[in-house]
Amino acid sequence: MAAARKIIIDTDPGQDDALAILLALGSPELDVLGITAVAGNVPLTLTEKNARKICELAGKPETKVFAGAICPLVRDLVTAEHVHGRTGLDGPDLPEPEMPLQEQHAVDFIIETLMAHEEGEITLCPLGPLTNIALALNREPRIASRIREIVLMGGGFFEGGNVTPTAEFNIYVDPHAADVVLRSGAPVVMMPLDVTHRALTTRSRIAAIRDLGTKVGNACAELLEFFERFDEEKYGTDGGPLHDPCVIAYLLQPDLFRGRRCNAAVETGSELTMGMTVIDWWQVTERPKNALVMRDIDADGFFKLLTERLARL
Amino acid sequence: MAAARKIIIDTDPGQDDALAILLALGSPELDVLGITAVAGNVPLTLTEKNARKICELAGKPETKVFAGAICPLVRDLVTAEHVHGRTGLDGPDLPEPEMPLQEQHAVDFIIETLMAHEEGEITLCPLGPLTNIALALNREPRIASRIREIVLMGGGFFEGGNVTPTAEFNIYVDPHAADVVLRSGAPVVMMPLDVTHRALTTRSRIAAIRDLGTKVGNACAELLEFFERFDEEKYGTDGGPLHDPCVIAYLLQPDLFRGRRCNAAVETGSELTMGMTVIDWWQVTERPKNALVMRDIDADGFFKLLTERLARL
Amino acid sequence: MAAARKIIIDTDPGQDDALAILLALGSPELDVLGITAVAGNVPLTLTEKNARKICELAGKPETKVFAGAICPLVRDLVTAEHVHGRTGLDGPDLPEPEMPLQEQHAVDFIIETLMAHEEGEITLCPLGPLTNIALALNREPRIASRIREIVLMGGGFFEGGNVTPTAEFNIYVDPHAADVVLRSGAPVVMMPLDVTHRALTTRSRIAAIRDLGTKVGNACAELLEFFERFDEEKYGTDGGPLHDPCVIAYLLQPDLFRGRRCNAAVETGSELTMGMTVIDWWQVTERPKNALVMRDIDADGFFKLLTERLARL
Amino acid sequence: MAAARKIIIDTDPGQDDALAILLALGSPELDVLGITAVAGNVPLTLTEKNARKICELAGKPETKVFAGAICPLVRDLVTAEHVHGRTGLDGPDLPEPEMPLQEQHAVDFIIETLMAHEEGEITLCPLGPLTNIALALNREPRIASRIREIVLMGGGFFEGGNVTPTAEFNIYVDPHAADVVLRSGAPVVMMPLDVTHRALTTRSRIAAIRDLGTKVGNACAELLEFFERFDEEKYGTDGGPLHDPCVIAYLLQPDLFRGRRCNAAVETGSELTMGMTVIDWWQVTERPKNALVMRDIDADGFFKLLTERLARL
Repeated sequence: MAAARKIIIDTDPGQDDALAILLALGSPELDVLGITAVAGNVPLTLTEKNARKICELAGKPETKVFAGAICPLVRDLVTAEHVHGRTGLDGPDLPEPEMPLQEQHAVDFIIETLMAHEEGEITLCPLGPLTNIALALNREPRIASRIREIVLMGGGFFEGGNVTPTAEFNIYVDPHAADVVLRSGAPVVMMPLDVTHRALTTRSRIAAIRDLGTKVGNACAELLEFFERFDEEKYGTDGGPLHDPCVIAYLLQPDLFRGRRCNAAVETGSELTMGMTVIDWWQVTERPKNALVMRDIDADGFFKLLTERLARL
Repeated sequence: MAAARKIIIDTDPGQDDALAILLALGSPELDVLGITAVAGNVPLTLTEKNARKICELAGKPETKVFAGAICPLVRDLVTAEHVHGRTGLDGPDLPEPEMPLQEQHAVDFIIETLMAHEEGEITLCPLGPLTNIALALNREPRIASRIREIVLMGGGFFEGGNVTPTAEFNIYVDPHAADVVLRSGAPVVMMPLDVTHRALTTRSRIAAIRDLGTKVGNACAELLEFFERFDEEKYGTDGGPLHDPCVIAYLLQPDLFRGRRCNAAVETGSELTMGMTVIDWWQVTERPKNALVMRDIDADGFFKLLTERLARL
Repeated sequence: MAAARKIIIDTDPGQDDALAILLALGSPELDVLGITAVAGNVPLTLTEKNARKICELAGKPETKVFAGAICPLVRDLVTAEHVHGRTGLDGPDLPEPEMPLQEQHAVDFIIETLMAHEEGEITLCPLGPLTNIALALNREPRIASRIREIVLMGGGFFEGGNVTPTAEFNIYVDPHAADVVLRSGAPVVMMPLDVTHRALTTRSRIAAIRDLGTKVGNACAELLEFFERFDEEKYGTDGGPLHDPCVIAYLLQPDLFRGRRCNAAVETGSELTMGMTVIDWWQVTERPKNALVMRDIDADGFFKLLTERLARL
Repeated sequence: MAAARKIIIDTDPGQDDALAILLALGSPELDVLGITAVAGNVPLTLTEKNARKICELAGKPETKVFAGAICPLVRDLVTAEHVHGRTGLDGPDLPEPEMPLQEQHAVDFIIETLMAHEEGEITLCPLGPLTNIALALNREPRIASRIREIVLMGGGFFEGGNVTPTAEFNIYVDPHAADVVLRSGAPVVMMPLDVTHRALTTRSRIAAIRDLGTKVGNACAELLEFFERFDEEKYGTDGGPLHDPCVIAYLLQPDLFRGRRCNAAVETGSELTMGMTVIDWWQVTERPKNALVMRDIDADGFFKLLTERLARL
């Protein structure tokens, strides 16, 4: 068997971030070197704590969790308690974490880890605003060529946005960071709303997770039921989109996804379209192909994988 | 039978504009008071001539054709010969028109007609950049409340753009005019690419038109075959989108279309997203519902209607 | 003696516009072919009436006055009653005008006049927002090369703006029109705040005008006393800047002014700097030299000229 | 005597930065806790080395020098070798520095120092792009209220810009960082071009420095002679503006400067005016007074102070 793929998860949990972390921790193909928290769905003091709660839920309190950026590069922080609840992990009743937060700053950990490993060894998995990643790229530009892949959840194009008509939340919160990442030259795989809105937490899919009968299964079902309420009401669908676990699923089973290499650019100059990811899907511009942008998912396969891996925790 | 609905067609023919004009001239429910030409797909000297060619093809040389704006309100004119050919009507060999161009300026005709009729009597049908309509609204703001409806082809949202990743051609050419129209308070119905990309000129649909066996049927088939080449190659589809006739079809049979009242705004401040129509489909902003934005079409019904009306010419 | 120079004054009176019109009407070197009114300092219904009031005050009721644009090309109209008073001509008690408003639209008059005269014969003198001029250039682009000069009051650079920190009122009200004019290729002379803020209506200068002892002299003194109140309070100076007459004075005595040919561009994309005229005085860009931008004035000579010409009315 | 004022100099030397550092190191009223280098006039590898060269020239090799940001927050780095020469310190022949660069990152040093001292004890003196300061404020927002003052060289308003018509170099290089700093709530004193363009390195002022007859005096004269060449040619003046030492002079003798508390905002949304500092000098907006913006200087007093302090090294 191949050595496990070394990843750093950069995250702002959030219920869907929690599922992504659990999917990673339940997958032997992945070696989670660290989890770096960022402000996003809720403020940093909550996201770093939530990351630790999830590690303990997974029974992996030895996982290293680091706190990173408190605010976006330029704009004021916008959070999403109306979606995630006051704690960011509303739903189940998870205990306060006992495992420690690492002392090192998340950005320093990302840089140090990338510089200490071989080129192409480390994959970054950003599930929230890209502030930590941009700060690391700015502080140590040499990491750009050492990153194996940045597989990120963010953006939206043919699906539109979710926080504004054109912008997806993660990119909207820190559009300048997304701009830095997409222009960095590092290889980027993008999971936009175009994918995640096809990965709906239907009743039967949640039921399958609850039916695992485990503590993790129960907590996940409760997280998902809380999480889907906002989008179910907004879109009138059975279930809400399950965004962040798509990133981890791509590492495990890339053939669940279909996309195209093309240019992805971020609007940072206009309030009307601020934070929009402009995807040149039809290649009508001369802009370089800087990202593999996913547009479709085998949703049944995805939930099968997710459920199977949650079962291992 | 109800009196025919009085319309002014504002247009930059263009093969699909030609089909729209023919659809209108072949429909007794519509009274085409005038056709106003605007620079767009090709320069004004061609669009006004093309409008006259089409009227003569329809056997209606008594139709009044007016020349309007030579250039957009603010930006330099961009044309689309790569789509429409050098003349704008490449495909069939249509004779030079003998019918005269009206002396009056298109903008003055629009204003005069609206002021001379009752409130709510006149419908405007813009098929190109909205320059003429914006100039009329600016020159005589009282027309805004006299217009029955502005049913326009333009924009795109979930489908993206066609001239840039985010902008549809008509709006891109004169985004400021579109901004003026959408903020004017006049009732707007929008046929964006989201609709027109579902109205494909498939082989069988073109065949049905050719099979009319008339001069008009033959010319239309040739127009469509030329026109679809660009998009067929780009999108790999059987047939290209037939944009402008959707506007006229809506007047004849509105139940062919499905949409939603929501806010439509135009990006005029950023080059990256210049001319994008930002549609607040999910109502995530407080912006007013200023347009009925269509998103779906009964394409078979649409082509059936089109073919049947072309048969009458 | 040379034939009088043929000019069209485009204006939104405004006390300082009034002085400019009087300066022109009192100068035999100038032949005022028409006065075209535009919305600006106050709405169009007032500016066209005010233009007629001033012609009658000058004893020239035969002057042709035309009404033009009611609103800017793209943005909503902003007016300046806090500076000019409710009527736009607050100060003296001028009678309602008896002379008629011309029926022709101002934009049509501008185009017709330019097309009817030789190339290089007609000078345009815009004293307000550039809406009429931009509309004329758009409607008949051939006029650009027929205009002798556009000598305009507008903009500001080293002096900053007056309506926002960076924007002067005339340009701010219709930045898109200014953009059209400055990119039109027509020869432009610009009188920005950098000049006009050095032409202060000091007590002694107003006294000299009142001492003419004429009806015109008295009315002008009252106009100036009302007009200077706003800027005197704002800037703490003796007198306020007398903007618009600088345009006419330049036609009469160009050596009163000093400037430089350089690029002038208008900000239309950002709200923070909207309507700013960006002057490349030091030629640090590659942008073309599209305007003669004035920066200094012989203020004493200017007021001497003004007073002397008012004396003739 | 009062305790020396504790300062951190953030800098991208640059000849004028060098003079500012020397002025600080020659002034007993100031305690230079550290010098933090940033990319700007030349890349970071040169600016940190240049900072050390200057400390050694001053005979203060014990000064702590830290390297900071390699690039701006969002935009690509722009440098100014055409002004400063290839090394950034062209002019005299200064030896390679022997003193070490500190290992700690400049941003961490700034944060640590501010957190380790009392509130209101530390003054930051940024002489280059504000990247390091913005990164520190973002990484540890609590420092904003602990900073005594940020006295920065940057911006320009009534004087215009130097790198573009509207933007001064330091702000242009990292407008987003300037935006972060100006919105941070920390007390800011701004020395824009409006001040520094009145502090010209005339022949006699340079002669007075050379006449000190010291190694420092000679080196400074050579630095200034190289530095002024660019601006002398551009502006046709006797001497060039001496920007950065104004910051240090303000700490030593604030009454050399005159200014006003008002709003300062940075343009980050438009390429035309990118990096402009918009100063609401006349308070025509409701924006908060977030900076003390200087506009005038006693240039003779300034050069007297500078020369006298250089004499002490």
